[in-house]
Amino acid sequence: MARSEFRFFHPLRVRWAEVDRQGIVFNAHYLLYCDVGITEYWRRIGLPYPEGLIEHGSDLYVVKATLEYHRSALYDDEIDVGVRVARIGRSSLVFGVEMHRGDDHLVSGEIVYVNADPETRRSSAVPAFLRDAVRAFEGRDPSA
Amino acid sequence: MARSEFRFFHPLRVRWAEVDRQGIVFNAHYLLYCDVGITEYWRRIGLPYPEGLIEHGSDLYVVKATLEYHRSALYDDEIDVGVRVARIGRSSLVFGVEMHRGDDHLVSGEIVYVNADPETRRSSAVPAFLRDAVRAFEGRDPSA
Amino acid sequence: MARSEFRFFHPLRVRWAEVDRQGIVFNAHYLLYCDVGITEYWRRIGLPYPEGLIEHGSDLYVVKATLEYHRSALYDDEIDVGVRVARIGRSSLVFGVEMHRGDDHLVSGEIVYVNADPETRRSSAVPAFLRDAVRAFEGRDPSA
Amino acid sequence: MARSEFRFFHPLRVRWAEVDRQGIVFNAHYLLYCDVGITEYWRRIGLPYPEGLIEHGSDLYVVKATLEYHRSALYDDEIDVGVRVARIGRSSLVFGVEMHRGDDHLVSGEIVYVNADPETRRSSAVPAFLRDAVRAFEGRDPSA
Repeated sequence: MARSEFRFFHPLRVRWAEVDRQGIVFNAHYLLYCDVGITEYWRRIGLPYPEGLIEHGSDLYVVKATLEYHRSALYDDEIDVGVRVARIGRSSLVFGVEMHRGDDHLVSGEIVYVNADPETRRSSAVPAFLRDAVRAFEGRDPSA
Repeated sequence: MARSEFRFFHPLRVRWAEVDRQGIVFNAHYLLYCDVGITEYWRRIGLPYPEGLIEHGSDLYVVKATLEYHRSALYDDEIDVGVRVARIGRSSLVFGVEMHRGDDHLVSGEIVYVNADPETRRSSAVPAFLRDAVRAFEGRDPSA
Repeated sequence: MARSEFRFFHPLRVRWAEVDRQGIVFNAHYLLYCDVGITEYWRRIGLPYPEGLIEHGSDLYVVKATLEYHRSALYDDEIDVGVRVARIGRSSLVFGVEMHRGDDHLVSGEIVYVNADPETRRSSAVPAFLRDAVRAFEGRDPSA
Repeated sequence: MARSEFRFFHPLRVRWAEVDRQGIVFNAHYLLYCDVGITEYWRRIGLPYPEGLIEHGSDLYVVKATLEYHRSALYDDEIDVGVRVARIGRSSLVFGVEMHRGDDHLVSGEIVYVNADPETRRSSAVPAFLRDAVRAFEGRDPSA
């Protein structure tokens, strides 16, 4: 996917503790980077996680995560974490994430969340306020 | 997948630092648990990672990881990490991982590695010694 | 301090993700190991953390931690985490921790907790049930 | 110590994965924050760790770390990690670190490094280039 597909990037720098004996970021830490990027995405569209969602009756749980590793990030690398909502289903919300170091495409991720009622923790339809906020930011309709 | 599909389980206990504010294991840490389980699998079949592989000319890199989250692990839970080699391709090796807490199936994972030459770091065919060790342990032929 | 000073050791194996580019355990992770060891100490003396303490009106907060690094732990090392209560003050409880790899003394730690009321979170005197459990296990009086 | 004692602060935001079940940053992670802050300090004074030091014949190992916890950092907090070189001995270098959230003083740390020859890994005198760079940045002589 082209960088131009993303309207949001969060920059971060690889920490010493995140790099393994091979000198590359340990594979699980990219999932942490996805989480950091998605947190900042929520803040950017005006719904800081989790309070900004919970107060409107929405909580989110990860149900599936997929990472594809193309190139390795190294210690002290500055990487850009691109985040977009790829699609919204009835009760699910799918994030697409890409990590780049300059022109190098390092890792792609897809994180699937299910929307839940904060009280019952049961899955429920993605509420309109959330669809609207995403559509307004993305400039397209991920529900389609 | 039934527990009986696994010939190897590694037990581990959830650490306080691995649990988040919701009281559940943070999603990225299950990928760490996969890594711990796979490390112990290699030890069990007589090829301790990485030396036992590298000395025979094989190194492994993760190229794809998929996790499906069914139920959450909690602080202090004792979980069993089931590990099996699901299949071996020309240069790839696919692990299936399942985490259970008693009868509860918590998380499924699939971790795809590519076999590489330790010197050039280029992908190369999975060597016979590795196929043989896996087939002997699993009692079936994952190359088929 | 001699190994014989410790009545409790918890074994653990260094994970790949805990080792840095220098091939040694990253310095902060030894504090995690202290936490794991102390958790197991509480379980051993019959007061599993935190429920076993909280139900009796005691909660604990770390107020100071000191680590001295003598030798490095390496990937896949099996280390023994020795844990003892060094002393108990009016409202404080001091753990001594030592990590060994066979005869190699790797790291010493001292972790100071303050006892608090679980409801008010204010410091309060270390309760008698806790002093008694420690004294019974240690075979000496850490309050002295 | 007053904030004015520090000429360098590194801002960071607490990640979801760094917060425990009590809703506060797990105690070991503050040591990670110290490491991040010290890394940025080295960059700031023109000696990016580790290459900027190693190329001049200096490598550094942590020999002691002390943390004092005054108040807890919470999820999503923006904290300032103040870093200074408190003193330089013959072969040792002592960092003072303080973490603040606005006017709240959260944690103080002292991290003692020993200077080593990168080849032999034996301790050696802190070289002049390093003393000079620190003195120039701090505006005082930490060797005194």
